[in-house]
Amino acid sequence: MMKRIQGIAASSGIAIAKAYRLEHPDLTVEKKTIAEPAEEVARFEAAIAKAKEELEAIKAHALKELGEDKAAIFSAHLLVLSDPELLNAVKEKIENEQINAEYALHEVATMFVAMFEAMDNEYMKERAADIRDVTKRVLAHLLGVTISNPSMISEEVIIVAEDLTPSDTAQLNRKYVKGFTTDIGGRTSHSAIMARSMEIPAVVGTKAVTAEIQNGDIVIIDGLDGEVIVNPSAEVIAEYEKKRDKFAAQKAEWAKLVNEPTMTSDGHHVELAANIGTPNDVEGVLNNGAEGIGLYRTEFLYMGREQLPTEEEQFEAYKTVLERMEGKPVVVRTLDIGGDKELPYLDLPKEMNPFLGFRAIRLCLDMQDMFRTQLRALLRASVYGNLKIMFPMIATLDEFRQAKAILLEEKEKLIAEGIAVSDDIEVGMMVEIPAAAVLADQFAKEVDFFSIGTNDLIQYTMAADRMNERVSYLYQPYNPAILRLISNVIDAAHKEGKWVGMCGEMAGEELAVPILLAFGLDEFSMSATSILRVRSQLKKLSKQEASRLKEQILAMGTAEEVVNFVKKTFDLN
Amino acid sequence: MMKRIQGIAASSGIAIAKAYRLEHPDLTVEKKTIAEPAEEVARFEAAIAKAKEELEAIKAHALKELGEDKAAIFSAHLLVLSDPELLNAVKEKIENEQINAEYALHEVATMFVAMFEAMDNEYMKERAADIRDVTKRVLAHLLGVTISNPSMISEEVIIVAEDLTPSDTAQLNRKYVKGFTTDIGGRTSHSAIMARSMEIPAVVGTKAVTAEIQNGDIVIIDGLDGEVIVNPSAEVIAEYEKKRDKFAAQKAEWAKLVNEPTMTSDGHHVELAANIGTPNDVEGVLNNGAEGIGLYRTEFLYMGREQLPTEEEQFEAYKTVLERMEGKPVVVRTLDIGGDKELPYLDLPKEMNPFLGFRAIRLCLDMQDMFRTQLRALLRASVYGNLKIMFPMIATLDEFRQAKAILLEEKEKLIAEGIAVSDDIEVGMMVEIPAAAVLADQFAKEVDFFSIGTNDLIQYTMAADRMNERVSYLYQPYNPAILRLISNVIDAAHKEGKWVGMCGEMAGEELAVPILLAFGLDEFSMSATSILRVRSQLKKLSKQEASRLKEQILAMGTAEEVVNFVKKTFDLN
Repeated sequence: MMKRIQGIAASSGIAIAKAYRLEHPDLTVEKKTIAEPAEEVARFEAAIAKAKEELEAIKAHALKELGEDKAAIFSAHLLVLSDPELLNAVKEKIENEQINAEYALHEVATMFVAMFEAMDNEYMKERAADIRDVTKRVLAHLLGVTISNPSMISEEVIIVAEDLTPSDTAQLNRKYVKGFTTDIGGRTSHSAIMARSMEIPAVVGTKAVTAEIQNGDIVIIDGLDGEVIVNPSAEVIAEYEKKRDKFAAQKAEWAKLVNEPTMTSDGHHVELAANIGTPNDVEGVLNNGAEGIGLYRTEFLYMGREQLPTEEEQFEAYKTVLERMEGKPVVVRTLDIGGDKELPYLDLPKEMNPFLGFRAIRLCLDMQDMFRTQLRALLRASVYGNLKIMFPMIATLDEFRQAKAILLEEKEKLIAEGIAVSDDIEVGMMVEIPAAAVLADQFAKEVDFFSIGTNDLIQYTMAADRMNERVSYLYQPYNPAILRLISNVIDAAHKEGKWVGMCGEMAGEELAVPILLAFGLDEFSMSATSILRVRSQLKKLSKQEASRLKEQILAMGTAEEVVNFVKKTFDLN
Repeated sequence: MMKRIQGIAASSGIAIAKAYRLEHPDLTVEKKTIAEPAEEVARFEAAIAKAKEELEAIKAHALKELGEDKAAIFSAHLLVLSDPELLNAVKEKIENEQINAEYALHEVATMFVAMFEAMDNEYMKERAADIRDVTKRVLAHLLGVTISNPSMISEEVIIVAEDLTPSDTAQLNRKYVKGFTTDIGGRTSHSAIMARSMEIPAVVGTKAVTAEIQNGDIVIIDGLDGEVIVNPSAEVIAEYEKKRDKFAAQKAEWAKLVNEPTMTSDGHHVELAANIGTPNDVEGVLNNGAEGIGLYRTEFLYMGREQLPTEEEQFEAYKTVLERMEGKPVVVRTLDIGGDKELPYLDLPKEMNPFLGFRAIRLCLDMQDMFRTQLRALLRASVYGNLKIMFPMIATLDEFRQAKAILLEEKEKLIAEGIAVSDDIEVGMMVEIPAAAVLADQFAKEVDFFSIGTNDLIQYTMAADRMNERVSYLYQPYNPAILRLISNVIDAAHKEGKWVGMCGEMAGEELAVPILLAFGLDEFSMSATSILRVRSQLKKLSKQEASRLKEQILAMGTAEEVVNFVKKTFDLN
């Protein structure tokens, strides 16, 4: 019987194939007294060795198929397997309490997980997840059960799972996995991000797929509307094949725009740029025809390592990106660490409200050695392309002045050392703190450009943690208060002849595009995979017509009014 | 030799007296094996009993001298002493490990403290402090040492201490304690708050007083400029006696204004109101000549107890306040719990950023039973005075509409039940979230009044946790972004014929008063002890002259510029 299950659209597209349930075996352990602790320790060590072997293989596979970033997850897992603190704790427990390895591992791992989770810090929570993942693998070896091995799939399937772990997704072969659906997760969960990066349709957070779908059921994944259809009738299959083909045709249509400039129907040009995290991402940027990089997040250079990156390492990364972009603008954001992004080796004090804490430029103005190293690397790289530098989390004019002064100092030093530095590096700032948006006219006199970071701007303006589900109803990009701030920033900048970009998620949203065009936004920066869709949308919009709606939108009272009005006016869903 | 030590002015006034070092004895414990655990447990129980007796006496003293709120601290301490989990853990430790009571207590308490502190939640941290305080008292009894007993002081003194614990301050006799100074703490630390409530001069956070001051040294506490002078020369004593007398004269001058209306030099009336937490505070409000209560924080009704207060309990509290204010306006803020204020019995999930979390109106709209009980109590009390109700943490129009609809529903129900309800209760909201300040024109159409909560408004607008020392430089009340938002709120309200108050700390600041007058603020609400000073200041200011500065101030770029300009213009320090 056909069933329809609603979930969250996590990656667009339509897939139709047989279900493959990715199940995790029962790993319940019992406490047993054992006579020979030495043998038990040996058994534990053998399981560890097998798990290591397996992980090395998965890591190699991930490196080949999914790139360095994703493979890093398994480096982290391998680190857990080599952590003497954890291993010795298990061995001591086996020896001291004369208990079985399964139970000793379970107990020790539970304690470590609880400890890391209690730390209330995203980095430590990830460590907790790593330990949980690795423990399962070792337990399976100890218990003699097989954990699912999706890399063995050899026909076209839809993956159905409660959730996908990083090791699951790393083993998925794009050739065979046509889509996936999960019980839990949201648009920003690991599974969702992986699906988008693999460009396969996915519907997450269904709460029901593992209960409703059996191995071999025919399943349709509608990643456009967030629907999963189990055992569809022939008519429904035909209908969705049509929808799939239409989407494919649309994508093909978009693909034709890859070398076209972004132009509205009335001939107004806006710049469509991409957000990137590492030099590896540049390929996707070029393939999708971005006109520049609107946000290069430099945090990744600092993460997943034991100490700060050197000036040389940074220089190489920045140079690579600038060279590969061949003179197109590259906006680099200086280190935005703190909040949910921590660097364990900096050993910063725990904060009660990390999103309102000592992060980004606040930290950089304090830890100037670290900041100056990054700026030197950027300045040295500047001669290899079109570099623009922006500072994150600027709240006061004074902070911007200080940061810019440090940049100029380092520039002078490099010049004195005889090192070439570009002479036309634009220096701007993120507008993501309400104070900066309110005072944009003052900032506009001193910056070369603004880039609006909507994720943070919304969270601060609404005073609602965007990671906290209980207040997620307040994360309202279309709240008129947010739109007024955005409009104020753009007007203030234009009055001083400066340009304004947006690098928050909003810039790529279908509903936001006409509003931002109406407000006069100059540069839209988004994930590379959204660029062609937005270029196609902008091609059909008239700047002049959109502009007429500005005052009307800004006079509204609620997000709902705005959304309904824009949907109706521009015929969007 | 005379020494001058700079600290933080925590409570105004000048005191000159002999130093009394409030020292805490060495309570280091050693681990000892004991032969008779039963005797050791008995010794532990005896110490607990003595500590209880002592605490009961201190509590009674506090109740008499300092009121119910302060005495509640000792109820909390007594609760610790009756906590079976803690007591049994100590006893078991003594018995199982055959160790001395001191060491067992020390170990168990350290574990409890670490556990509560790790919870990263202000309420639990307070519990940790309670346990630390109580443990010291019990340890002293076990070790046979005397902990200082400031209630025995029988001559005029200045208390010198590293810090003052709640039990220390509760024992201070106002008759003899003329002032105090500490090594640690800030303007919002426990010591500072106690000093202001006792109206004795205090300088905290000196980092040096216990090292530099001996018992019997003559000490001057300058709570106006935050200075401590040790062994002053005769000339300096004379100088400070003059300063003390001048301050006393000024206070006497202010006291004459107690029954006067608040009027500027050009005959413009503004309302000076007080912030209160409990009905007990009304006495101070009346003594200081407040024209109303601008903020009645109802959280205290919900705190320090095991379950929600009943409708009846709340009704009694609200009625008392309304009656005692004899028709003067009383603005009651509905429950503002969450963030740094938690209610353990609500068992809310821990949040990563509690200041951006599920609190205040967000919580009340979800837990409607609790909210409706409070509203019913307020509505029933409304016939006993001039009640105005305001909702905290409103971010969207929709939230205000929902809250108001619930209020009206309860009103209809009461009327249907034949219960009298006032017909002219104004319904307003706090403006403390940037979104509300930006959209004030839309809100102004639907509210009866605004009250600006500067503490939160500043923290969100600057994206800086006001409790986090590392970003305290961003807590800038005079940042032009903040001033623009305040001015926008006032203008928007006046355009709709509504009034605007301010109940954040800023309203009572000498530097803020002329700015807020210039912007047209209608009601200034502050701690009762500031009212006469501000009335006196306003008397000398001309509304018309101040107004002329508005545009100039709003066009400035930094807080520093504003502060310098206002200081110079109004001749303030």
